Amino acid sequence: MTQSASPATINHAVIIGVGLIGGSIARCLRSRSGVTRITGVGRSVANLDEAVNLGIIDSYTNDVPTAVADADLIVVATPVLQMRPVMEAIASSAPASVVITDVGSVKAEIVKVADETLGALKSRFVAAHPIAGTEHSGAGASFEALFENRALILTPTDGTDADALATVDRVWRDTGADVVSMDVESHDRILAATSHMPHILAYTMVEHMARQPGSERHFELAAGGFYDFTRIASSDPMMWRDVCLTNKTAMLASLNAFVYDLNSVIDSISREDGDALYDLFTRAKVARDRALYRRRKD
Amino acid sequence: MTQSASPATINHAVIIGVGLIGGSIARCLRSRSGVTRITGVGRSVANLDEAVNLGIIDSYTNDVPTAVADADLIVVATPVLQMRPVMEAIASSAPASVVITDVGSVKAEIVKVADETLGALKSRFVAAHPIAGTEHSGAGASFEALFENRALILTPTDGTDADALATVDRVWRDTGADVVSMDVESHDRILAATSHMPHILAYTMVEHMARQPGSERHFELAAGGFYDFTRIASSDPMMWRDVCLTNKTAMLASLNAFVYDLNSVIDSISREDGDALYDLFTRAKVARDRALYRRRKD
Repeated sequence: MTQSASPATINHAVIIGVGLIGGSIARCLRSRSGVTRITGVGRSVANLDEAVNLGIIDSYTNDVPTAVADADLIVVATPVLQMRPVMEAIASSAPASVVITDVGSVKAEIVKVADETLGALKSRFVAAHPIAGTEHSGAGASFEALFENRALILTPTDGTDADALATVDRVWRDTGADVVSMDVESHDRILAATSHMPHILAYTMVEHMARQPGSERHFELAAGGFYDFTRIASSDPMMWRDVCLTNKTAMLASLNAFVYDLNSVIDSISREDGDALYDLFTRAKVARDRALYRRRKD
Repeated sequence: MTQSASPATINHAVIIGVGLIGGSIARCLRSRSGVTRITGVGRSVANLDEAVNLGIIDSYTNDVPTAVADADLIVVATPVLQMRPVMEAIASSAPASVVITDVGSVKAEIVKVADETLGALKSRFVAAHPIAGTEHSGAGASFEALFENRALILTPTDGTDADALATVDRVWRDTGADVVSMDVESHDRILAATSHMPHILAYTMVEHMARQPGSERHFELAAGGFYDFTRIASSDPMMWRDVCLTNKTAMLASLNAFVYDLNSVIDSISREDGDALYDLFTRAKVARDRALYRRRKD
């Protein structure tokens, strides 16, 4: 596998799952990658109608085999646990020259599902994960600039065709994303720590607060910091359920390590160890301020 | 104690600790409450010089007794654990007619310190806590609109003079804050859950990530959600150390209850209980979206 192969020309792209991410890619495909026809696949007619009205897709269907029969590019942008039947349907109907990619937040499970379902099209699949999003869902929340200056992680395998990889690489560069490659295990471990765990903490925190007597009052008295801290708790519950179920091992490792550290902070508070608390808060502040400085400089 | 007494006219206000909060109050006192002279007290000459240059204060000193000798209003805006010597100095020199307030994030400890140090001026003290802030520190970070539409909690006691309460109440209404009153225990319990605990989680999370091998790369790959989630981990470490040491009981109760809930979520992930995870994420999303809707409507 080399990356020197040329990217394919994409005339017809199929977006399966026209939500925040799928809709934003569709917008980029049309205005930045020269794609002339975009078909949406989904379950919610209201959402698909909105996507047509917004010019995000040209038409839609609920039938994957029909949609992909003459597709040049297929983007699977459904929650992770819906991908198996989708890929089985793709395998039954898509042409041999098709390029298939996804946008899932976990990668090992998806690559495994692709291996098990895509058959002869296995080498045409390039797993991808855009590190971008908002807490909003649906085609109406999508926008073209979503991926600009955000990381995009590709996790190709030894069996990935070079031209398929070149095509997916070019499409993502067109969106303005910073494209990097890594193996699936590294992806799942890093994302568990930087994204999946914070989502669990935010969801747990908000649900914890909501269960307390007088919680309405508590939410009213919460400062802006609270609403920033918990923004990600407004994310799509089904997507995050699927992430938990498909990146279980890495998430449990991250969460258990975090609980261990948190218990140590609780212990410092119990012992009134001001020096330990001051040192920890200072290390955290320095690390975050430094990371943010580097991020803004880019 | 009634609140029908008239607020006093404030000619000379003294701000002890001219940081983000102290500086922002000073700006409001001058432009919204008609205060003609503002003296700053602090340790950092660079910060105080900046405050003078920005027109936030007229002059400064490092000597509390000198500053407060003819004060009409004193705002103690230092970290909590620095308040005892400050209040002792106030007691030694301020006039009997003075009104004293603070902006501390904990209230039981501060009311106790005031009781133990202020002597005859005890009834002139009105404890207050503006639920507002940013992750930035220092006079240069202060701004007049900081408190607009934010909650301001007063925790007067039976011994608080009605005219002192009326004065502090009016000053805070002038800033645009929504003034509410409650007892010190309720304040400390609610703030532990809505503010103090999230700060601990954010600090612990960032420090946890910073200790991992390859953490620079991880911070680069983190999405915007991560930076929102951890914004409060850039807050002043000394302030938050003091909060931990002075609101220990309520914070430990909140943190231990949170760890209990988090372990239950970890258990759901271990058991691959998708229904439990989906239900929890949905309850959290609904609670947050609803709270945010009410907040924006106000």
